[in-house]
Amino acid sequence: MALLDRITEPKHLRGLSLRELEQLAGELRDKIIDTCAKNGGHVAPSLGVVELTIALHRVFDSPYDKIVWDVGHQAYAHKILTGRKEAFSTLRTLGGISGFPKRAESSHDVFDVGHSSTSISASLGMAVARDLKGARNKVLAVIGDGSMTGGIAYEALNHAGDLNKDLVVILNDNEMSISENVGAMSELLSRTVTNEFVHRIRKDVGAFLKALPMVGTSALQIAKKAEESLKGLFTPGMLFQAFGFEYIGPIDGHNIPLLLETLENVRKFDDAVLIHVVTKKGKGYPPAEKNPSLFHGVGPFERETGKVLKGKGGPASYTGIFGETMKKIARENEKVVAITAAMPDGTGLSPFAKEFPERFFDVGIAEQHAITFAAGLAAQGFRPVVALYSSFLQRAYDQVFHDVCLQNLPVLLAIDRAGVVGNDGPTHHGVFDLSYLRVLPGLTIMAPKDENELQHMLQTGLELDGPSAVRYPRGSGLGVPIEQILQPLPVGKGELLRDGKDAAIMAVGTMVYQALRAAETLAAEGIEVAVCNARFIKPLDRELVIKLAAKGRLITVEENVLQGGFGTGVLEVLEEEELTETAVTRLGYPDAFVEQGEQHELLARYGLNAEGIAAAVRKSLGR
Amino acid sequence: MALLDRITEPKHLRGLSLRELEQLAGELRDKIIDTCAKNGGHVAPSLGVVELTIALHRVFDSPYDKIVWDVGHQAYAHKILTGRKEAFSTLRTLGGISGFPKRAESSHDVFDVGHSSTSISASLGMAVARDLKGARNKVLAVIGDGSMTGGIAYEALNHAGDLNKDLVVILNDNEMSISENVGAMSELLSRTVTNEFVHRIRKDVGAFLKALPMVGTSALQIAKKAEESLKGLFTPGMLFQAFGFEYIGPIDGHNIPLLLETLENVRKFDDAVLIHVVTKKGKGYPPAEKNPSLFHGVGPFERETGKVLKGKGGPASYTGIFGETMKKIARENEKVVAITAAMPDGTGLSPFAKEFPERFFDVGIAEQHAITFAAGLAAQGFRPVVALYSSFLQRAYDQVFHDVCLQNLPVLLAIDRAGVVGNDGPTHHGVFDLSYLRVLPGLTIMAPKDENELQHMLQTGLELDGPSAVRYPRGSGLGVPIEQILQPLPVGKGELLRDGKDAAIMAVGTMVYQALRAAETLAAEGIEVAVCNARFIKPLDRELVIKLAAKGRLITVEENVLQGGFGTGVLEVLEEEELTETAVTRLGYPDAFVEQGEQHELLARYGLNAEGIAAAVRKSLGR
Repeated sequence: MALLDRITEPKHLRGLSLRELEQLAGELRDKIIDTCAKNGGHVAPSLGVVELTIALHRVFDSPYDKIVWDVGHQAYAHKILTGRKEAFSTLRTLGGISGFPKRAESSHDVFDVGHSSTSISASLGMAVARDLKGARNKVLAVIGDGSMTGGIAYEALNHAGDLNKDLVVILNDNEMSISENVGAMSELLSRTVTNEFVHRIRKDVGAFLKALPMVGTSALQIAKKAEESLKGLFTPGMLFQAFGFEYIGPIDGHNIPLLLETLENVRKFDDAVLIHVVTKKGKGYPPAEKNPSLFHGVGPFERETGKVLKGKGGPASYTGIFGETMKKIARENEKVVAITAAMPDGTGLSPFAKEFPERFFDVGIAEQHAITFAAGLAAQGFRPVVALYSSFLQRAYDQVFHDVCLQNLPVLLAIDRAGVVGNDGPTHHGVFDLSYLRVLPGLTIMAPKDENELQHMLQTGLELDGPSAVRYPRGSGLGVPIEQILQPLPVGKGELLRDGKDAAIMAVGTMVYQALRAAETLAAEGIEVAVCNARFIKPLDRELVIKLAAKGRLITVEENVLQGGFGTGVLEVLEEEELTETAVTRLGYPDAFVEQGEQHELLARYGLNAEGIAAAVRKSLGR
Repeated sequence: MALLDRITEPKHLRGLSLRELEQLAGELRDKIIDTCAKNGGHVAPSLGVVELTIALHRVFDSPYDKIVWDVGHQAYAHKILTGRKEAFSTLRTLGGISGFPKRAESSHDVFDVGHSSTSISASLGMAVARDLKGARNKVLAVIGDGSMTGGIAYEALNHAGDLNKDLVVILNDNEMSISENVGAMSELLSRTVTNEFVHRIRKDVGAFLKALPMVGTSALQIAKKAEESLKGLFTPGMLFQAFGFEYIGPIDGHNIPLLLETLENVRKFDDAVLIHVVTKKGKGYPPAEKNPSLFHGVGPFERETGKVLKGKGGPASYTGIFGETMKKIARENEKVVAITAAMPDGTGLSPFAKEFPERFFDVGIAEQHAITFAAGLAAQGFRPVVALYSSFLQRAYDQVFHDVCLQNLPVLLAIDRAGVVGNDGPTHHGVFDLSYLRVLPGLTIMAPKDENELQHMLQTGLELDGPSAVRYPRGSGLGVPIEQILQPLPVGKGELLRDGKDAAIMAVGTMVYQALRAAETLAAEGIEVAVCNARFIKPLDRELVIKLAAKGRLITVEENVLQGGFGTGVLEVLEEEELTETAVTRLGYPDAFVEQGEQHELLARYGLNAEGIAAAVRKSLGR
């Protein structure tokens, strides 16, 4: 890696020839593929923007100029070029560098990311800050076409067009963000515009042509010529021009000379400009080019073949069981429809989509719309299931309140990636949902102890008259037998799995089996501990709490922050029931953001496993 | 009111002549103005759509056809025409009909609203439901131009354009939603397009003309003619056409025959159509036409003159003091900037905007962008203050998490309308914020006991290194003296206002003086109660909790739901400190949505006043 060794900061790019820049692109790809083969990571997005990253750092002067990466999973080349070449081997590991830009990591990372569609807002803020300070730095947002389906991006475009600041938005159009792109946007961005859109415009063109002075030439001839020109005129810049941006493109995002020339030109502008760059996801690594969805975010793989290394042979994932259950339920109940926000694979709904294409809706990265769209369906008698990741559900908090709970509409939230998700780190951990959902009146909240119970909880939610949520973790289930017949569970009732006189553990979801293991360990030490599977976070099983409280010592355990979570709900019951004599110990994540790392590493670090639970019980008993 | 007396359901409109429909419009206006003069209400929005409402109910067959009102504050004529003529006198009162559509109230209200920009999502859900059922009803969303600045509306447009369902979106363009409209959108919608936008397009037109066969006529001549035509061609439908909608308009929204003709035509379509209707806010009532911002949502007024009746002479409002303090602070600290989401008047920032126009940003109804834009400014060394209503802040929950707290950026959230807001009811009450914000690591949360303390809390937040929030209620302050020098308060420290041996009340914000009054009453009965002003909901004053817990009885009181709020935070501290011997009583709103009514009525109903607090203390002491 001769060239890369010479680059310890972006300004070193300036000395390189075009040929060397192209060689550097190859070296960056090598490094990205090598590291991700070991650590896993967002391979395809990062490979797609290698040339763009080189060109940006060659033309602009980071960190004086601010480059804001949307989502940030494409920033690996940026990290390597900005002084993190060595540290890159620790990518996404406990204590290592983040898979996303992080201000704490480098001055070149000007804004933390992980969630989608924030870059235009943040960079507009930075552009305004620059002007207020009287500085002259450039501000650039790099945003994928997928991220452009998120509403906040439009809110920002609208405001940016109004302010018309010196701001560069680079639309990284890879024709496919996480999964296949959805919505009118993608049509608008497609480069072969032989579509309905032009057809629709044609009518207006007719009127336009009538207004032109028709001097001799046949109208048909003009119309034909005009139509061809209009293909260029009306797309894809139109949308952005409508919002007040200068539009440049589309240009080839793998052509370094073209990128350099374009960016050099844009550097001289002082208006809001959008550059439409076309890239290929996974570029330069055939397995990723062939399967960009798999290589969007992937675990360790074999570099030669692209074969993913782990995850085979083990028990089915919660996500997989969710998808299977959805098919099962939908076969019985024609009112059930499924909605995802650009995550048909990630949420396990792809098989459902295949079997029930007319009852499946991928709305794009648009969680807010997903929920309100579901509410509209529910208001007309359907039973929508919205499958989202826990941390992305935060985007739709108001919609869950305003459009679902307030109307008591039977929307079921299938909350995947609840608890710690592992290497994606704090932006992606789903450790707040029990707290922020528990606040909302009328919402039934469940967490299954295993993948079999997940099935029954989905059935339970679908038989309720109002809204419900089932939250479950990333990764494999426990390999328990999957019952074929789905049974709704008694609402608001926990399940006592083991009795014991010395104390009681009330466990939620993934913590139930850990609590059982802890109880076994303790039994061997002569400590008799009851274990209950809470099942329902809301409504809480008040009777069970009262019963277990009588043992004098309650330990609650959940994969959620301690503030306002399940354990706190137990405290509230005890206060309401005036059961002050019970000593409670709540286990969960503390009031701080949980770092990245393997799931089991993080769980161990926070005492959320059998050992940690056993230790907490001993402590509570003073042993 | 001869005509209106004959209309008890919308189908009765069919027998009326055009002249009668116009007479009916006048009668509806009379009724709306009369009722709102007594009850207050959203006068201007509702007056603006009287003709549109008549036309919709004449052409379409509600409730078979579904009319979804965005925000819903414009639905008064709809309510009167759909069987609620008599009940209309109870508008917005305790136990009366809602100021917004409510499914529980009428089958003609097909979706509950209050917050903005949800109608396209909800109606798309209903259109999909119709098609899945094989029904043939029409679905219509009526959305204002202001609501079109909300991101969820674009998420929905994008999805709708993709699905191309039979769906009618009526864009009610009154050139000004709540305050002056913001953003590129409003430019795009303006009907006199002699603006920058066309200028920008001109360059493309040049290229287009070059491609045309230039047979003799001078290029200049064609260009000139073309430009004129293009004004019509490029606006305002372009944006919606880009999203795949047929575009019709703009048409005069007060011209009943034109509305009827247009709607009749559209009824026959089966594509996604957008009708651009131009209306005047406050139409037909001169005071509202003259001051649509005041009459957007107004308290009781004198019908003859439009003079607002109450609110004069009393103490300054929290909102007003916030605005004054912002000016004071901004004069001292040039890094302070202010951001609002379409509420410069509502949040009290208008005077700030006048004094510091370059440091004031109205981003439109776009809470998500408001927060991330602020984070961008904060990342570059500014001290943004984002002023939002509590219930609208829910829209930006993920942004507060992801863009502010996770990066520990010093953004100050000025949360107005916290607690019950009164007649706007459950969509607008701000009773969840303490719970959902308390969950987020690193956020300092404050609530002032009075308007003077509000000032100091703003100063406190602005001197912190990280994010903070100050929440305060709608309405008048207490008339306390306003200190001229702003002092930061000791962070995480409560204020003991009165000591007493029998019990301690820990009160938050508006409840502090009520608690003091309760303590006085109790003192007269021989019960000695300590009262503390919590000041900080987070970080909680742990020492003070411990100290007061020693009295054996703690009563917490807050204008927030009981789940996960301040009182729950106190329970968490007691659990962590193993102070099981203290009996706690938490006062706040129960786990249900709080209805509409005057603020004092609601506070009394839930025991959140001096009487209620005193009663709770007596109960706790067994008296």
